[in-house]
Formats: sequence, C-alpha cells, structure tokens
Amino acid sequence: MVQSENGIRVAVIGGSGYVGGELLRLLLPHPAVKEVRAFSESHAGEPLGEVHPSLLHLEGGSFEAPDPAGAASWADVLFFALPHGKSQEVMEEVLAVDPGLVIDLAADFRIHDQDLYRLYYGEHKAPAALEGFVYGLADVLGEGLRGRKRIAVPGCFATAALLAVHPLAAEGLLAGTPTVFAVTGSTGSGAKPKRTTHHPVRAHNFFGYSQAGHRHEAEAAEQVRAWSGDPAAGLRILTHSAPIVRGIHATLAAHLKEPLEDPASLFRKVYGGRPFVSILDSPPELSAVVGTNYAHIHALSREGGRVVVVDCAEDNLVKGAAGQAVQCMNLALGLPETQGISFGGLYPC
Amino acid sequence: MVQSENGIRVAVIGGSGYVGGELLRLLLPHPAVKEVRAFSESHAGEPLGEVHPSLLHLEGGSFEAPDPAGAASWADVLFFALPHGKSQEVMEEVLAVDPGLVIDLAADFRIHDQDLYRLYYGEHKAPAALEGFVYGLADVLGEGLRGRKRIAVPGCFATAALLAVHPLAAEGLLAGTPTVFAVTGSTGSGAKPKRTTHHPVRAHNFFGYSQAGHRHEAEAAEQVRAWSGDPAAGLRILTHSAPIVRGIHATLAAHLKEPLEDPASLFRKVYGGRPFVSILDSPPELSAVVGTNYAHIHALSREGGRVVVVDCAEDNLVKGAAGQAVQCMNLALGLPETQGISFGGLYPC
Amino acid sequence: MVQSENGIRVAVIGGSGYVGGELLRLLLPHPAVKEVRAFSESHAGEPLGEVHPSLLHLEGGSFEAPDPAGAASWADVLFFALPHGKSQEVMEEVLAVDPGLVIDLAADFRIHDQDLYRLYYGEHKAPAALEGFVYGLADVLGEGLRGRKRIAVPGCFATAALLAVHPLAAEGLLAGTPTVFAVTGSTGSGAKPKRTTHHPVRAHNFFGYSQAGHRHEAEAAEQVRAWSGDPAAGLRILTHSAPIVRGIHATLAAHLKEPLEDPASLFRKVYGGRPFVSILDSPPELSAVVGTNYAHIHALSREGGRVVVVDCAEDNLVKGAAGQAVQCMNLALGLPETQGISFGGLYPC
Amino acid sequence: MVQSENGIRVAVIGGSGYVGGELLRLLLPHPAVKEVRAFSESHAGEPLGEVHPSLLHLEGGSFEAPDPAGAASWADVLFFALPHGKSQEVMEEVLAVDPGLVIDLAADFRIHDQDLYRLYYGEHKAPAALEGFVYGLADVLGEGLRGRKRIAVPGCFATAALLAVHPLAAEGLLAGTPTVFAVTGSTGSGAKPKRTTHHPVRAHNFFGYSQAGHRHEAEAAEQVRAWSGDPAAGLRILTHSAPIVRGIHATLAAHLKEPLEDPASLFRKVYGGRPFVSILDSPPELSAVVGTNYAHIHALSREGGRVVVVDCAEDNLVKGAAGQAVQCMNLALGLPETQGISFGGLYPC
Repeated sequence: MVQSENGIRVAVIGGSGYVGGELLRLLLPHPAVKEVRAFSESHAGEPLGEVHPSLLHLEGGSFEAPDPAGAASWADVLFFALPHGKSQEVMEEVLAVDPGLVIDLAADFRIHDQDLYRLYYGEHKAPAALEGFVYGLADVLGEGLRGRKRIAVPGCFATAALLAVHPLAAEGLLAGTPTVFAVTGSTGSGAKPKRTTHHPVRAHNFFGYSQAGHRHEAEAAEQVRAWSGDPAAGLRILTHSAPIVRGIHATLAAHLKEPLEDPASLFRKVYGGRPFVSILDSPPELSAVVGTNYAHIHALSREGGRVVVVDCAEDNLVKGAAGQAVQCMNLALGLPETQGISFGGLYPC
Repeated sequence: MVQSENGIRVAVIGGSGYVGGELLRLLLPHPAVKEVRAFSESHAGEPLGEVHPSLLHLEGGSFEAPDPAGAASWADVLFFALPHGKSQEVMEEVLAVDPGLVIDLAADFRIHDQDLYRLYYGEHKAPAALEGFVYGLADVLGEGLRGRKRIAVPGCFATAALLAVHPLAAEGLLAGTPTVFAVTGSTGSGAKPKRTTHHPVRAHNFFGYSQAGHRHEAEAAEQVRAWSGDPAAGLRILTHSAPIVRGIHATLAAHLKEPLEDPASLFRKVYGGRPFVSILDSPPELSAVVGTNYAHIHALSREGGRVVVVDCAEDNLVKGAAGQAVQCMNLALGLPETQGISFGGLYPC
Repeated sequence: MVQSENGIRVAVIGGSGYVGGELLRLLLPHPAVKEVRAFSESHAGEPLGEVHPSLLHLEGGSFEAPDPAGAASWADVLFFALPHGKSQEVMEEVLAVDPGLVIDLAADFRIHDQDLYRLYYGEHKAPAALEGFVYGLADVLGEGLRGRKRIAVPGCFATAALLAVHPLAAEGLLAGTPTVFAVTGSTGSGAKPKRTTHHPVRAHNFFGYSQAGHRHEAEAAEQVRAWSGDPAAGLRILTHSAPIVRGIHATLAAHLKEPLEDPASLFRKVYGGRPFVSILDSPPELSAVVGTNYAHIHALSREGGRVVVVDCAEDNLVKGAAGQAVQCMNLALGLPETQGISFGGLYPC
Repeated sequence: MVQSENGIRVAVIGGSGYVGGELLRLLLPHPAVKEVRAFSESHAGEPLGEVHPSLLHLEGGSFEAPDPAGAASWADVLFFALPHGKSQEVMEEVLAVDPGLVIDLAADFRIHDQDLYRLYYGEHKAPAALEGFVYGLADVLGEGLRGRKRIAVPGCFATAALLAVHPLAAEGLLAGTPTVFAVTGSTGSGAKPKRTTHHPVRAHNFFGYSQAGHRHEAEAAEQVRAWSGDPAAGLRILTHSAPIVRGIHATLAAHLKEPLEDPASLFRKVYGGRPFVSILDSPPELSAVVGTNYAHIHALSREGGRVVVVDCAEDNLVKGAAGQAVQCMNLALGLPETQGISFGGLYPC
C-alpha cells in the first residue's frame, strides 16, 4: 500500500472544474488523506473556497500553477480532472517519474481497443501509456482494484448504463444491442456558461443530443463485449439534457435470449454486498442519490420476461466521477471501500 | 357543417381540471365560437377566472352544475374533459338526445378492440356507444375528420409516440416492437396535489413509472396495427416524470426491416402540408412548443440505417389534449384547421 | 394618426435580444401593423425564427443589417431595443429624418434631470434629443400618450415599483422614502450566457445585487418627485435574482403621513378602468401574469394603517418592456389600447 | 454535562416531518450520540429510511408510537419536532419526569411575553412550563447556552431576520422598525402536499403571504426589545414563497439613528469567532448554504450611511431548525459547538 507515514498525499490536477471541485470536497476531509494540493491553469493563486463555494468552510489552500511531473513526484495519489484529451498529453512525462497511484477521470485511458477509440475520439496521442490502465467501474470490480496503480474512471453516462446492464451482460442474456435512454443535469456540461446551459434556455427545457452515437458508447461497448464474450456486443446510449442540476437517470430496455421472470433477484445476487449499489423495490428517485456515491437500481420484466427494463439513478459528479474516483483510490490502496464517501443525501433538496 | 346562425355553441363537461381549463382558454376567444358553457361538479357556481387564472382576463361566466343531457341538447359541440371512466357512464344518455359533435378527451372511446381495452382498463361500461367514435389523431387524419360526429382525442403520451412512429409504421418499415422513452411534466398528473407532485419532492427529481405497461400502449398498439397491417404490432412506452410543468418529450428507437438512410425525408413527405407538425434539422427543444399546438420532430438514422431515432416534443395539455381537441372540432366542422390555435409559444419561458 | 394606407409600417432596431424577440412576437400578428422589418448587427441575414424560437410559426423575414436613418425614413413606428447607451448614439441622426413615432426601450431617454441621470449612468451623449421624450408608463398616462411622437419605455423594475407606489405618491401620502424589494427572473439579464445565469448556478439560487443603488432608482425618483411634488422624494429598490425565467415581483413597504385603513379602495379608484392593471383581493401570483401585459396588484395596511404593503407582479419582458412599448404605440396612434396585447397567460406553466 | 457512559441517548418526538427527518440525519451519525429513538404517530412501525430517503444508508430502526413521558425518562436529550401547539400539550407531563435536556423546535416556548404570544397564537395552554426556556439563537448566545436544560429553537424566518438585525439592535443603532423581506423554499410548508406546494403551481411562481403580520414577528420583537432595551422595538417581516426547495433569504432594510459608514466591520466584530456565521464581501448566494448549518451575511450602507441593507442566507431546515437545534445541544452539553454539523454544502446543487 502506497502511503506516507501519517496519511496519504494527494494531488488534484485540474481542480477548477465541477469534477475537480467535487474531488477536493471529498478528499480534503478524507480520514486517510494527510495533505491535498490542487493545480489549475486558469485559477492559479486563487483560494479554493473562492473558486468552489462548497469548499468555503473546509481548510484548504490555494490553487497552484500546473506542474504534473512535480506533483507526480510529491504525491502518493494523483488525480487528473482535465478536459478530455489533455491527460494523454502529459501522461508520458508523468509516468516517467514512476508515480504512485494515478487516477484519470477523462476518457483518455478508458478504452484499450484503438479502433473503437478512434471511431469516437480520433487518434490517441499516447497509446503506449494505456497499457497499465484498468477501467475503474468500482461497483463491479471491487477488490479487483486492490493494488492497481493506473485507473481510468468511467464516464458519467457509462457508469449508470453499465451498472444497469452488467448483470444481464455477464449472464449472457442479451439478445442484440440494448437501448439506454439517459438524461443528465446541467453540471454535466461543465462550469463554463454556454447557450444550452443558459438559465432562460435550460430551466424548463428538455432535448436530446448526440443520439447518432454518444462517445460513452465506446467505453460501454468495450465492457459489454468483455462481460458477454460477444465481440459484436454494444450499448445504444440516447442522451438527453433535462432541467436538473445534478444527476443522471438511465433507463435500459433490453431484449433477452430467453425469458427472465425475476430480474430483481439476479440484480440482488450480482450486487449483493456491494456497498454503493442498492436494488430497490420501486423505480429510483434521482433526488435520493444526488450528492452521494450511491447508485439506486430497479429492474422489472415485461412482455413475458423477454424484455427487461432497468432504471438506474446516480449523481453524475459523485458516483459518475469524483466519488467513484475516491472509491477506486480506497480499493486500490486497501482502505475501507466506503471511507470518506459513505454519507447519504439531502432529501428533499 | 353543424353551426348555429352566428357561431357555434360549445359545452365543456368537466371544465375544472387542467385540460378543461385549457379547452376554455382556447374556446372562449375562438373566432367561430359564439357561446361557451362550462360544467363542473366540484366548482359549480364559481367564476371561471377563479378556478383557472388563465381565464382571468377573458369574458366568461361561472361553472354550472353537471347536466350532460341538457348540455347535449343545447350545444353544437360537446367536449368531455372528465377523468377516465366517467364519460362512458353518461354517453348513452347523451347520445340519446342526438347531439351534434361529441369530442371526448378521456381514454373511454379511444380503443375499439375490447380485448386490448380490457387488458389495460378492465370491462367497458358502454361498448355499444363506441361504434361511431374515430381516434382523433388530427395531424395524421386531417381532412379524414371532416363530417365526423364522434371523436375520441388521443392520450398525451400516445400523441407524441404515434406522431413519431407513424411514418415508419405506415411504410411497413418496423422490425419488431419499437421502444419509446417518454418524459412528462407535472401537469400530466392533474390539478390535485399528491406526493409525486409535491414541490419539494418533484422540483429536482426524475423517476420512471408504469414501465411494466403504460395504459397508452393500448391505444398506440391499435393504431400501429392499423397502419402497418400487422396484428401483432405494438409500441413499448416507458414513461418518466421530469421536473417540468408542461410538455412531453418522446424518443423513439426503432429497428427497421431494411436500412433507411434519410428518415427526415420520409417524415417531411408524410407530414408535408400538415400545419402543426414541423420536421426540424436538429433535436426539438421542449420549451419551443410549450403552450402551443405544434409538434416538433427530428429523425435520424444510426447503425447503418437499421435503427432510426425519432424525437418528438409537444405540450401535453395542448397538442396532447385540448389543442388537438379543438383541431378535431375545426376539421370535423369544416372550419380552417388552424383557427384559434395557430399561436406560437413564449421563448424563453 | 400616423399610419400608412393599409396598416402601420414598423421597424425594430436591435431585434435579436430577448426584448427584441418579444417585440417581434407582438408586432408581427398585430392587427394594425402592415409590415415589420427587424434590424440586428449580430444576426443580419438570419431568419427571425432561427434567432427566436417564438417566431418559428409566424410569417416573418430575416434580420437586416442596421440602418437607423433608412429605417426611420421607411417606418411609421420605430422601436429601439438596443443595450443601454446605444440609442443615444444614433438618435440625432434618426431625428434628423423627421421620423414618425419613436419608441425607445433603453434607459437613454427616460430621465430628464441630467444630474440624476449622471449619478447612475454618467454623461449623456445626446441631451438635446431628450426634449420631446415622454416617460411612457402606459398604465398611468393612458390617453395622455395620445399623439406623442417620442416615448421612452420605463425599465422593468421601475414599471413594477412605480405601479405599486403611484396611488400613494399621487395622493401625497408618503412619509419618507419607501422601500421596494424586487425579484427578477433570469431573462432580465439578457440572452448572453454568463456566470449568474449559468443553469447550475442559477437554478436553485437566490441572491441580491445592486442593493447600494440600482439604476432604476433614477427614473423612479423622477416620477415620484413629479407625482408627489416633493423634490426630495425617491424610491429605494433592492433587487434580487430568483430562479425563475420570466417575471418581476415587487413588494413595496411604505410609511404614510397619516393612517390609511383601506389602501385597496384607493388603488381601485386610481386604476379604475385601466385595462392592464388588476387590483386583487389576495397577493398576486407571478405565474398568472407571465407572458402577458397585465400587472396584478394587492395592497394591505398594517400597524394601524401607518404602513402599507403593496405587491405587484408583472412579466419583465412584456409589461416591463415589449408589451408596454406596444401599448404606448397603441395609445400614441389612437388605436384601441389593448389591440394585439390583450391575451391572457398560460396557467399553470 | 448530562451524558450516558458511552454517549448520549437522544429521542426525537415527531420525527416524520421534514424537520424531524433533518434531526435524524444529523443525530444518527453524530459522534457524541450513542442511541437515537424516533417517535411518530402517523408512521409508527415504519423504517426510518422508508419515510426519509435521506436516512436510507444510515443505520436506524423504525418509528415508535408516541410516548413522551417514556421517552423523557429514557433519553438524555429530548427533541420535539411537532406542529405548533402540540408540545405545550405534553410538556407538563414531560417535565414531571424531570427529563434531561429538552429542545423544542415549535413556537410553543419561544415567547415569554404572553400578550405578544396571544396576539399571534392565541392563549397558551401551559404558560407555567415556559419559565425555564431560553430562546436558543445559538449564533448569538454561544456559550451562554452552556448548562441550559430547556431550549426553544427559533423559527426559520426569525433566525435569518434576527442574525441580520442583531448587531444593529445590540448597538442601539435602529431608528424605527426595520423591514425584512424574506423568501422561503417549499420545504418551509412541510411534507404534506397542498395547493401552494403543488409542483405545477409552485415551480415557476413567486408570491407574498402573511404580510399583514407573520407569526415570527412575535419572537423577533421579543429579542429586538431585549437587545435594544426599547420596549416598543420590533421587526416587520414580509414573507414570500419562492420556487426553491430549501433555504431562506432575508433582506433587511434598516434606518439608523446616525450614519454608519462601514456596517461590515460592525458585523465582523460582533460575529467574530462564531463558527457558523460568515460575513461576506458580496451578497450571499442561497445555494452556497443549502444543506448546511452556516449563515452567510453581507451588509452595506447607502444614502450616506443612514440606511443599512443586510442580506442573510440560510438553510431553513438546518440553520433555521434542525442544525441550530443540534448546535444548541452541543453548546448546552459542553460538546464542541460544531460537532456533527460542520460539513459544507454541495455547490452547484
């Protein structure tokens, strides 16, 4: 277990976005963490609490100017919360200093099949660096993450969609490509104002986007193929913007090879003992998981069991990003899996 | 054309709910309407503007106590905006006075296949009264409604789902049962407060419901069967509650028998000249149709054209209820189809 | 009455913002208007319906490049919907062509006292052009606007605050400066995205701003001084941003020189017959006026009648801008005051 | 310090409302609390997590049927979270068993002046029980609560209004009765659905209520009189409902006896060292305090310092109820003041 004498040293690279802010909110009071440094190009020199109101009442310093190699030499755990495409530009330099645990929250190191990656993202700039990375779907891998040194945290949509489909895929039940209908809140678009997140436009609106092929379909396909053993398997993710701030709700409609009467039992068996996945008796409410690292799931069968519908609700910035990243850290370092992230949500909020 | 000398006499039976309020908002200033009477059991005697703030600045009287047969004798056009199951209790009495045009907005007279009806609603109380009723999907039937005397207005979800699937079904392109993911605003639950529409619960929430088989699947199946000629055809409608007040957004994912490269062309051809259906070049925004009788549709192909995704946005109380009902009246009576309902929306709102 | 043979020619200068969009929404179907031309620097050449979804189903052309003098020569009525400070830059050039009716919606020509203007806005660039302008508080002036050629439409906050205080000021009842607590929706900040209108920030937020002296206090003070005859009179307007899209709610707390038992009677007397001001028996709901040109007002006395509290609700873009501007046009030209703007709102919406 | 050997035993009487739910959310994981029992008439027998989704992932049992005297005998600390008027019905029975610390969250024991109480609430049923109660405005009293056995927690509006006015009142600066304009979210109306919290009605609405004299003016007056030494002093609280779920924003406008140039300095001095009150350099955002026990305050002077405007933002269920109640418990028992309630908020959320 990589750890300093009295706790872990953590560096957050790219801490000024919403995901970075959530990482800092979770890591600053984390019982196993001794020290946190945050790096930001655009906000270097500014106190954390001025950039992120959620940090106003936490002890924390100021953002430092970016220094990936320096941070990598100092830290026991290195979190990258940069825009997609940026971490692959510095990863070779970072790996050269033989860092401790590296956790990347962008898409850069999630996909090993380069043909699949290229289709959605273009040419990768550091394919050699991919090798040691594991796809950190923490609620599925669990102890499988123990001792891992390079973790790519799944995307927000992919996390919800994959948690919904995993039991069906792993049991080899899927007939054809299932469809996931997913909605996200406005924090999914980041901290920079734009037309689709302008309050007058977004506040009472609802619209689809990227429905010809959302990028998260790439990482989802790679996982579904591995679980099912079917190299042609995939996941159709139809994404929508809803007038909510936080949260993702995914509805999976899957045709099965043979009828399944009681999908809830299968889901309870597969996720039994996993602390952050709850299989509910009724459809999950998004509000109940906002701000938490929990995923709430409900599964039902219809049309004689040949079709299964699974609803999954999560917080896009916690379970779909920063919370899962800390869960990965806990698992990789052998800390208690729920340490620092076991809190429930506000309700109503 | 059934019409009084100086305009039409209209009666609205059950005018105190949200759909009733919208009917009155559209009918009171309608250029072809001479007189409107509104009936309500719970609000008899109260001025319209006290029950519906939208009517505050319109000339209108007060709600009268229910008198279906009396209203039927007086009116040229009779609208029923009662809870499901109530209009079938009085329809035989109403039809006995040989009324003019009867337009029912509940589910009672939408479904002719009694096996299908029974599956979702139980036993019908007045099956004989069903005979003359036509399913008033106005944007598809158009002039086909001219001269009709008995019209059952489609359900809000069914309208959006059917407008999305109609061109594909009518062309015989569907392979298997398509899935519709639909979200609705809180007005869809009616004017009576309950837990799922309690502001603290609903304001930032999102959740599925009735996903094992929403009632609107019954009327949708009957239409898709008629259009496609396939007696086993159907539509899977997975419904969700979103934190919006008005509007329905439906996303259809359909597998096709053979690839269709350019679904937008098909949709433009099928809906060409229909005044209330717009085929857009990009996904529709719900906000753009709120308060209007327009349906905005976008269709795209993916996976080599074997899968088509169609987004359809509408206002649940107008296009999905009162607006379509007035459009049915216009068409049935030979009035200009858009009369009194051609206004656009507020944006942003 | 300035009017072309078959209706009025209208030009909207600066039509791409939210106020410009609302002007076009009201003017394009206005019964007395024959032709509308819209000018925009940033959107020249673009169809109106692409810039403003509310115009999608209205007949309308495209935005033209700015040509104030040309527009002034062509039009019977000229609306300026430019950012504050811009109309004073072109007004002298416009007035030089001896235009018909000129209606400015910015602050530029609202304030005649140049010391007052300077305090809040700095030096005026065209003070000579101010002379003919009247402050178009339409619900107070009414027929007093008949025949006027130059009208400055009041600001959104000022309209609500002044309608609330006018009866008290005009009766000479005010003791000291009353306080108005006002909240506005996000459309008040315009169509350009910024941090305070970023959906994640604004959606569930509430905060004050400009409370040391909002600019609308200047125009409000000039009116209150004129009404009360007290050169030291004023209005304290404490502004707040609320998580709503449209609407302003103003709460006036005024100390009176002598007790007033029944302020509602005074308000009913003063606004009797005015078509767009309703004095209600209970506090107004913002939702009931959104999208309309109506102001809803409630007045009560407390503390033995020495303090009067007045609530006023309006739509900031209609009654507080475009609707009032059209009302000014109607009145100035001798058209029916409510023509084209008498519609009620959606409720609920 | 009243405490069991290995931690405190806590009973929550009336735990099924929103305030009860928040108490349980804070007390169940509180480091000094050993055991929590929750009592509810309407939900006896139901697991806590079924009634309050926020408790789903906390260890907790089920609600028990009410037994005030039994609870009082068992518990070290007794919280009452009943509707107003209910705790005075059982308090004499409770006090008869000589309980430990009693903390009431209703209005019943906040006001000692019976004339004032009667004016707003009618006749008190147990005036003798009032004697030992202290008004628990924790951020003002601080260590003054040490050792107290009977605490009445201030109302949500009163807390925000009093924190805003306290420094001015205590310094004897107030000239006349200041006005507080306050807005609240829908959780302030409780867990039971009603028209004004029906989502279609509330979601985009804003309206005033109780502006002729809100009940919280009574407790506020008693405090302002005590602080200022002026028996005629008071606070005018004009309340409004906003389309938010949680939070109260109060804006105080106060006329001063003599000019105060720099009110922020006074506020910083008065609240220096108080852990839950932050004096900000700019107006507080409600979103930054939602879910927390912090009050954020901004004070500015205008009109030559003769008028001071103070904005105060708080969470109505935490700082305005359950959080302040736990803070009172901490202070009364000599525990660290911030124990169990020091967490910051989510932002954005």
